[in-house]
Amino acid sequence: MDASEFRKRGKEVIDAIADYYESLDQIPPMSTVKPGYLYKIMPHEAPEEPESFDDIQSDLQNKIMPGITHWQSGNFFGWFPSNSSFPAMIGDMYSTMFDVVGFNWICSPAVTELETVVMDWLGKLIGLDKRFLSIKEDGTEGEGGGVIQGSASEAHIVAMIAGREMALERIKADGKVSNEEADSMCHRFVAYFSDQTHSSGQKAANIIGCRTRIIESDKDFRLAKRSLMAAIKQDKRAGLVPFFVCGTFGTTNTTAIDDLAGIADVAESESLWYHIDAAYAGAALACPEFRPLATGIERADSFNFNAHKWMLTNFDCSAMWVADSKHLVNALSIHREYLPRVKGDTSFVKDYRDWQAPLGRRFRALKLWYVMRMYGASGIRAHIRSHVKQAKWFEEKLIEDGRFEIMAPVVFGLVVFRIKPSAVNTSGDFEDVDPDVVNKANTDLVKAIQADNRVFLVGTKIKGKDVVRAAIGSTIGKQEHVENLLEVVLQLTSSVIDSI
Amino acid sequence: MDASEFRKRGKEVIDAIADYYESLDQIPPMSTVKPGYLYKIMPHEAPEEPESFDDIQSDLQNKIMPGITHWQSGNFFGWFPSNSSFPAMIGDMYSTMFDVVGFNWICSPAVTELETVVMDWLGKLIGLDKRFLSIKEDGTEGEGGGVIQGSASEAHIVAMIAGREMALERIKADGKVSNEEADSMCHRFVAYFSDQTHSSGQKAANIIGCRTRIIESDKDFRLAKRSLMAAIKQDKRAGLVPFFVCGTFGTTNTTAIDDLAGIADVAESESLWYHIDAAYAGAALACPEFRPLATGIERADSFNFNAHKWMLTNFDCSAMWVADSKHLVNALSIHREYLPRVKGDTSFVKDYRDWQAPLGRRFRALKLWYVMRMYGASGIRAHIRSHVKQAKWFEEKLIEDGRFEIMAPVVFGLVVFRIKPSAVNTSGDFEDVDPDVVNKANTDLVKAIQADNRVFLVGTKIKGKDVVRAAIGSTIGKQEHVENLLEVVLQLTSSVIDSI
Repeated sequence: MDASEFRKRGKEVIDAIADYYESLDQIPPMSTVKPGYLYKIMPHEAPEEPESFDDIQSDLQNKIMPGITHWQSGNFFGWFPSNSSFPAMIGDMYSTMFDVVGFNWICSPAVTELETVVMDWLGKLIGLDKRFLSIKEDGTEGEGGGVIQGSASEAHIVAMIAGREMALERIKADGKVSNEEADSMCHRFVAYFSDQTHSSGQKAANIIGCRTRIIESDKDFRLAKRSLMAAIKQDKRAGLVPFFVCGTFGTTNTTAIDDLAGIADVAESESLWYHIDAAYAGAALACPEFRPLATGIERADSFNFNAHKWMLTNFDCSAMWVADSKHLVNALSIHREYLPRVKGDTSFVKDYRDWQAPLGRRFRALKLWYVMRMYGASGIRAHIRSHVKQAKWFEEKLIEDGRFEIMAPVVFGLVVFRIKPSAVNTSGDFEDVDPDVVNKANTDLVKAIQADNRVFLVGTKIKGKDVVRAAIGSTIGKQEHVENLLEVVLQLTSSVIDSI
Repeated sequence: MDASEFRKRGKEVIDAIADYYESLDQIPPMSTVKPGYLYKIMPHEAPEEPESFDDIQSDLQNKIMPGITHWQSGNFFGWFPSNSSFPAMIGDMYSTMFDVVGFNWICSPAVTELETVVMDWLGKLIGLDKRFLSIKEDGTEGEGGGVIQGSASEAHIVAMIAGREMALERIKADGKVSNEEADSMCHRFVAYFSDQTHSSGQKAANIIGCRTRIIESDKDFRLAKRSLMAAIKQDKRAGLVPFFVCGTFGTTNTTAIDDLAGIADVAESESLWYHIDAAYAGAALACPEFRPLATGIERADSFNFNAHKWMLTNFDCSAMWVADSKHLVNALSIHREYLPRVKGDTSFVKDYRDWQAPLGRRFRALKLWYVMRMYGASGIRAHIRSHVKQAKWFEEKLIEDGRFEIMAPVVFGLVVFRIKPSAVNTSGDFEDVDPDVVNKANTDLVKAIQADNRVFLVGTKIKGKDVVRAAIGSTIGKQEHVENLLEVVLQLTSSVIDSI
């Protein structure tokens, strides 16, 4: 395919993309293929000779498309949203065009420098404390700054590595043990999470090889200061070394918000690295009305949210900030002759390779730049607020119906609910409903919704209860989609109850 | 930007991309901006209101473009190539359109299943041993398989984690120490590299928190069996625990090939995880004539090469295979209610989230599918062979010239050379040239080439000698570009020698 064929075919693809988005409401959101479907209809080797573009397009339509679950559909309410947008797509097309590997400044200065610029823009947009910004108000460089990671998991790993480095430095500086002994202590290092912390916390701990302590969340699914303190006290007594704690702003199960200020107190007194995972809900901080919920963030060591979830920037674009990059860079910096560093007259040159696990990096700042400029701060806020309003409306209608229980406060776009015991019970004796029957009714409801396939959502389990999760926040999602969701839920709830 | 505006603007972008590739020969490959250039010309906050697309396009041209180093230029010979191609771009456009987060099968079955299919295609294309394939000849599932990572660094991290898991399992199974003691031994685990191993090895070790032993390479820049054995013997005597070794097929500095079969012997006798890093040169294995150089690969535990380097697939697409996924999955698997697993009637469903550090994953298999189908195996081989031929031609011309020394065999597309001592010496006394003067002449040559900016390349240092690296392999790179490279090198070498 040469440039002239690309002009023709590329434009066909642009139309195909626009067609896809315009027709998403007409197709069922969830793929219904059976496991192993593709292998059976695919050749087992790459072709020896080039194939025609038309043949590939036909296979895309007939073989790939049926295996797609349509995250961009307005009827997709699964997990958390994965917002795509046309401006982000255009940013990504240019990033793909340049196809640079930005492992240092000269690889393409714009890749490094635009990232510094837009991460400061984004930090200001969500009201982050200025200690997280790269450039201070006087125009000089701060200790902190933002970096784009591929995922919240990678942010978690990087934060934990920085935390381990900070703890090791402190222990070595104390001089009570030799450096050798300090290094040997790492397997006694403990990272603290709640039972609602995202799985990436445990995975990061497995990767760096430290211990974890999973603390039971309170009745509101929050990590509380008192439980954290008790766990640390116990672990220290057992000879372990607390070094890291993760607070969550908007947990995966229920969008609960941990006691972020209380955790900050503990992190300070115990010298822990304090990471805040706001993967989903961080986007809401673009709206000032949500910021009071986030008190404590300004005292964290690192903060992360995924612009690729609820902020219109195609996957992957996980925004992470640190208040002081020293420990990160100390832990991840490797020098090689073929990787020269540039020292500018100013300090605007960051070696982002020392801020992440991999060496190479794509030009992800570009899509974020397109998004912030083409939506504007006002457009991003309107996007968030429209979904929160839809979620509140949906919650209200569920309550009005009378058969549902809202399982956690609806703060953002997630509504967690279940068919309540009294609605399941047909005998009228509300006090004595078998929890298993209630659980089964709710898992049946999720299955029925997925089988019906007018909308897509998933269930989860919280504190032993099977519940239904509806995450409202698709880029093209409108009030009418949530009305459709309500209709499906009410209708299928009746079927489920009838069949008990 | 709605779908109809995207139709219009997206097509303009397609033309802009085609224009860019058609005009690349006319622009200097290296960006010449000064550090900090962008911050000075950018607003310090995101705009409050949406901006016009035309304004952004104008900034892209005037502010971003000057900060790009053009990796796709035929005149770019820096580091290693980062091949883009139009088929890969189209694959990525569709991936961006779907914008799914493929952390498990139902997220989009095609994402998981196409990856399994194309990684088997690619494994067969480069002649990998069948133990690395997902599907055996009889149609049942093998123990191994391929997975697309973001970078060779991530492959290195994942391989090392699997190696640690394998070693821990063995130690625990031995029963000589308690499980607790086994875990506490990790800081005594040693990973083995040569002084030519890519920096990602050291970085992976820093991340997982193990030790490294950097072994001096032999005169041909290879990791030799004897040196590896000696280092292991010494370390074991000191109470350390060897667990991992990396062999390289095509090192970064010189494309040297370690004694892969000899390392396999040692890995087997010492029960080490054996990872082979073929980040750049692995692509050459598409051509059968290179496979005899890779004897030993069939005995590795994991193998990795970057299709985004020399195989026409835009960054990122790092192809990794393991012979047995058990240790990987044991180390990286985390269960959560909101992440259900699917068990099919067949075994074609892989939970790739357990094969990588992050949870989420993009649909990267799609671009690889477009590349293999639109080039065909024959087109990919022709791409590789054309560059190898150009590299040999360039080597020959440098030798003919008489002023250069070829510093390592030219096997693939990389030519490593320097102005030789006799050419630097003006007194005629060849035996007595100050090595610093020779080094300076060569670093001056690299600087002069970069300042001239008709072509781009970088230098490196090998065994104390400053040398020049020309990596031939751009997607649009033709013989005429290498002729241009030669002209620039010869001309500027004369200037450098004249100015001594």
